Amino acid sequence: MDNYLIFTILAGVLALAFAFFLSNSISKEDPGNEKMAEIAGHIHDGAMAFLKTEYRYLAAFIVIVGAVLAIFVKWQTAICFAFGALFSISAGYFGMNVATKANVRTAEAARHGQNKALKIAFSGGSVMGMSVVGLGIFGLGIMYFIFGGNMEVVTGYGLGASSIALFARVGGGIYTKAADVGADLVGKVEAGIPEDDPRNPAVIADNVGDNVGDVAGMGADLFESYVGSIISALTLGAVLFTNKEGAVYTLLLSAIGIVASIIGVLFARRSKASNPQKALNSGTYIGGAIVIISSAILSNGIFGNLKAFWAIAAGLVVGMLIGKITEIYTSDEYKSVKKIADQSETGPATTIISGLATGMYSTLWPILLICVGVMVSYFIMDGKTNPTMGLFGIALSAVGMLSTTGLTVAVDAYGPIADNAGGIAEMSELPHEVREITDKLDSVGNTTAAIGKGFAIGSAALTALALFASYAQAVNLTNIDLLNPITLVGLFIGAMLPFLFGAMTMESVGKAAKEMIEEVRRQFNTIPGLMEGKAKPDYKKCVDISTAAAIREMILPGILAIVVPIGVGLLLGKEALGGLIGGAVATGVLVAILMANAGGAWDNAKKYIEGGQHGGKGSYAHKAAVVGDTVGDPFKDTSGPSMNILIKLMTIVSLVFAPIILKYGGILISLLK
Amino acid sequence: MDNYLIFTILAGVLALAFAFFLSNSISKEDPGNEKMAEIAGHIHDGAMAFLKTEYRYLAAFIVIVGAVLAIFVKWQTAICFAFGALFSISAGYFGMNVATKANVRTAEAARHGQNKALKIAFSGGSVMGMSVVGLGIFGLGIMYFIFGGNMEVVTGYGLGASSIALFARVGGGIYTKAADVGADLVGKVEAGIPEDDPRNPAVIADNVGDNVGDVAGMGADLFESYVGSIISALTLGAVLFTNKEGAVYTLLLSAIGIVASIIGVLFARRSKASNPQKALNSGTYIGGAIVIISSAILSNGIFGNLKAFWAIAAGLVVGMLIGKITEIYTSDEYKSVKKIADQSETGPATTIISGLATGMYSTLWPILLICVGVMVSYFIMDGKTNPTMGLFGIALSAVGMLSTTGLTVAVDAYGPIADNAGGIAEMSELPHEVREITDKLDSVGNTTAAIGKGFAIGSAALTALALFASYAQAVNLTNIDLLNPITLVGLFIGAMLPFLFGAMTMESVGKAAKEMIEEVRRQFNTIPGLMEGKAKPDYKKCVDISTAAAIREMILPGILAIVVPIGVGLLLGKEALGGLIGGAVATGVLVAILMANAGGAWDNAKKYIEGGQHGGKGSYAHKAAVVGDTVGDPFKDTSGPSMNILIKLMTIVSLVFAPIILKYGGILISLLK
Repeated sequence: MDNYLIFTILAGVLALAFAFFLSNSISKEDPGNEKMAEIAGHIHDGAMAFLKTEYRYLAAFIVIVGAVLAIFVKWQTAICFAFGALFSISAGYFGMNVATKANVRTAEAARHGQNKALKIAFSGGSVMGMSVVGLGIFGLGIMYFIFGGNMEVVTGYGLGASSIALFARVGGGIYTKAADVGADLVGKVEAGIPEDDPRNPAVIADNVGDNVGDVAGMGADLFESYVGSIISALTLGAVLFTNKEGAVYTLLLSAIGIVASIIGVLFARRSKASNPQKALNSGTYIGGAIVIISSAILSNGIFGNLKAFWAIAAGLVVGMLIGKITEIYTSDEYKSVKKIADQSETGPATTIISGLATGMYSTLWPILLICVGVMVSYFIMDGKTNPTMGLFGIALSAVGMLSTTGLTVAVDAYGPIADNAGGIAEMSELPHEVREITDKLDSVGNTTAAIGKGFAIGSAALTALALFASYAQAVNLTNIDLLNPITLVGLFIGAMLPFLFGAMTMESVGKAAKEMIEEVRRQFNTIPGLMEGKAKPDYKKCVDISTAAAIREMILPGILAIVVPIGVGLLLGKEALGGLIGGAVATGVLVAILMANAGGAWDNAKKYIEGGQHGGKGSYAHKAAVVGDTVGDPFKDTSGPSMNILIKLMTIVSLVFAPIILKYGGILISLLK
Repeated sequence: MDNYLIFTILAGVLALAFAFFLSNSISKEDPGNEKMAEIAGHIHDGAMAFLKTEYRYLAAFIVIVGAVLAIFVKWQTAICFAFGALFSISAGYFGMNVATKANVRTAEAARHGQNKALKIAFSGGSVMGMSVVGLGIFGLGIMYFIFGGNMEVVTGYGLGASSIALFARVGGGIYTKAADVGADLVGKVEAGIPEDDPRNPAVIADNVGDNVGDVAGMGADLFESYVGSIISALTLGAVLFTNKEGAVYTLLLSAIGIVASIIGVLFARRSKASNPQKALNSGTYIGGAIVIISSAILSNGIFGNLKAFWAIAAGLVVGMLIGKITEIYTSDEYKSVKKIADQSETGPATTIISGLATGMYSTLWPILLICVGVMVSYFIMDGKTNPTMGLFGIALSAVGMLSTTGLTVAVDAYGPIADNAGGIAEMSELPHEVREITDKLDSVGNTTAAIGKGFAIGSAALTALALFASYAQAVNLTNIDLLNPITLVGLFIGAMLPFLFGAMTMESVGKAAKEMIEEVRRQFNTIPGLMEGKAKPDYKKCVDISTAAAIREMILPGILAIVVPIGVGLLLGKEALGGLIGGAVATGVLVAILMANAGGAWDNAKKYIEGGQHGGKGSYAHKAAVVGDTVGDPFKDTSGPSMNILIKLMTIVSLVFAPIILKYGGILISLLK
């Protein structure tokens, strides 16, 4: 095994070892009193029950797609695919298992002060982060080694990761929003009981939702992004370099990114800063700095110049700026959210209009920044004289953005753990101060998470473009001509898919939420003594409804994302499929940004009003803002985040199935004279 | 002058003569009592005041852009541009002038029965229709003759038509929705007075809005579509045929379309059918049948085969099916609208979510149908061996869809005239039966209008694609390669523009509506005796607010649509501009369909509930449905309809400015090494 490969795989092992260490340290913490343990047990069981049901369906999916790959493509691809899927599943399982232990321990620790609670919650998030990058790079490294760096085959690993990500994101997103809307609408609005009140039958499902959506779903999402970006760079690198410099650079940078993430996590955990925001930021900055410096040294050492470094730096700067813009459009410190809150005074219709307008406006700068990122990383790598090298630069800038994914996931997963801790504190009737601490911890990760979102969106676009180029090479296309009406037909279909996908997932949330609402209403009406706290609600029934709905509704969109590209390729040919990917990437990124930012802005406008503006809680403006927030829920937590995965999944499906498209593609066109 | 050209210009003259005849026949009708005349006078004056203010700004715009064209492109192009703009303006002015006379006469006629009222309202709409096609083809024919069929120059006529259309649609859309929302929110909801109550200060502005938005704005829109489709076919035809067969076919077909429209109008007017829907339908079908048959005869006569006929038939079928699908998603006879009404029972948030999901779903079939239309018309015209001929087929299918534009506009403009008649009846306190008749007439045009919408959307996509191909030829691009990152950058920017444009126009409506709301509230609060009917409101103030807001807010989006394509072409080059057009067309069509159908579905869900379902008027579900309808207003009447114009305007800007792009384009790229 080559040294760089050993180093890469060892970095993965190191991350996993660190995850075990963190996991153990969490297990040693005090899980609180009996009541807390009971509630935490319900959440844990609900989350695990969902994962197990989900995995049964995913197992069938893996077997079927694996068989198709083995028969029609290559058995090696099928193996890589299965490993990608299984490793993604394992990361989600392990991370969520620990998250549902960390939540109650965070609640208990919060009784004794903020610092320790922060440490436990962040450790819990870090386990998810380290599992994602550790398993991601370990599995990829092993596949790369076994199949001798044959990227045509290793890409299957990315297909596995992407398809699991789509199911996990869609399923988790539907689960969490159905439970959330059901708990809020009947519990808070109709019955008038507070958030996380143990009398609410949907309260456990709501807390389970945070775990399966915001921990496991998000983890699978970033597993896919992380692995996808590395694969796109490796694939282009394999074409470009005879001595594997591309692979060496990409893998070493990823390995260093893991080490940097571990150092960042350690810094954030050890930080004695009284402001928890500072602790998280310091870790993030240190991790980023290590990657930047290493990328320059590696660039000079491997390529003999700093071009690769500049491509990576461009990616990082673009990602951070997109994050900043996300913040400007979604934080109540800036005018967009204030304007939405102001418009709430004239009712829900104006709240919705101004939120949608904000979301649409918010696409402008991220898109322009992505364009700048594309151009800088392309031209700096001499794309003008060697287009493939330029595309490699684009892939590298995505790798750079995602190199500290371990840290990003840690911060992202930390939020729902703190949120869950608050829920457990509420349900176990812990003192009010405990909830205050967990609320503070929950709100803290937001800025850091916004930067993570910027990286996710930016890298999705760049990775998809790089994979797109690889697809073209795989099907021997030297150009995909927009003047060819067949390409345009593909472009139209591709551009439409994110809309269709958004419609399907939004409607699924609506359907599932309706079932939940009816069940919660039923329990309130039929269980005697429930409202007086004398009888217990049937938590399990609500958990079952969310589980069943999430599983049922995730199947069709997931299958569509795989079948449509193959179908279009077979019927209309490889140019049409190229157009499809181009169209899907363009509108997918736009819809993702629109939905994420409109949802975030509505959410914070509501919180802003709850903070006392425009009449505060219960005012006319607040009621309007709640409508905005409810519309925003499936936007930002279900449909929006699935878009990034959708576009990459469709691209990687095209790439993996390229041999078939190449051989049989364009059946319909050849029938037309 | 060649015979076919004489015939074309004569057809234009015939349409105009018919318009004058109809206009005279309307003038002879009884304008009702003094009170009616007074109210109609207010509406007429308000509408004319708006047009005059708008035209002052447009005059400055025409002078500036004309000068730019004369200096940087060609003086001949500038002349064509000015004529295109002036003819579009004239059509709007003339049509709206007559519409604001027809409204009060329709109200008067409705006192004596339905048939006569239908005849007057439809005659009023037909004047607009005949003005649009008459002036459109007459001006185009003259320009074509003067400049010897030099399409490079004549395209300027389309640029003039498109830019006026954008301003008129955006300005008119903002005007009508600001007045509508202001009148409804304060008058109906807050003060609790009925629709069109004369005590409402915004009631005149609301009725003026129907004219400037739904008559003049819509007319300019279809003037642009009509002219644009013919120009796209002429441009491609000029490249293909040395003996002008392409031009002969296109122009003769358009001329026959005018004759067919006149016959259709006469049939609908003379129809003795008791059901007014049947009268309108019979006219539409007869017009369509004449075009179909003539296109076959012409195709055989000019080209010696039926290929052109099939391309046209494909366009017509696709347009009709899109119209049918529009109906399925927006009529309360189908499940989507029923579902939205059902979701209204759980409040405004679920109403919004399900309306948005419906809008997004509703993009699927129209997009697939457009794709089928593109492919059929391309391959039937031998696009596989001669791509330009295939593209000519695409252009022809758009010409086919729009050949009976005269009829489409007549039906479209008939609705707001009947609506206005109802308003006048209400304000003049005519008997209740009068309002019932006008309401019935108003609702009748909807199905026919839906088919018109299908044609508008379908033809916009096809025309834009055909113009896109002409652009490529004009800048010597033989392919626009999606694998070139610069093209992708253009694609991203282009795809983003409809979102930006939608955000701008939606926010403009919000801003203008807010001003209106405040003014109406002020008048209710400060004018003593207003609510008791003893004092008159200050109608003019509200008219002025809508006018000022519409003019102010239309400028920036209008300028952007012209400056951005030129800017991208100059900075990033002709490939990037090609990508921009491709991206803008794809998302523009999608956003247009989404907004039109979501808006229509919300509107009809509200009406469905008002018809007695889910508790009827005043119920919880009704309140939620009103929120949906208010959100849908700017969707369907401002932002949505502007998208079709936006994409064609940007394409035609690129085509007209092609010589400059060719010479100076790509400044930034050439600076990058």
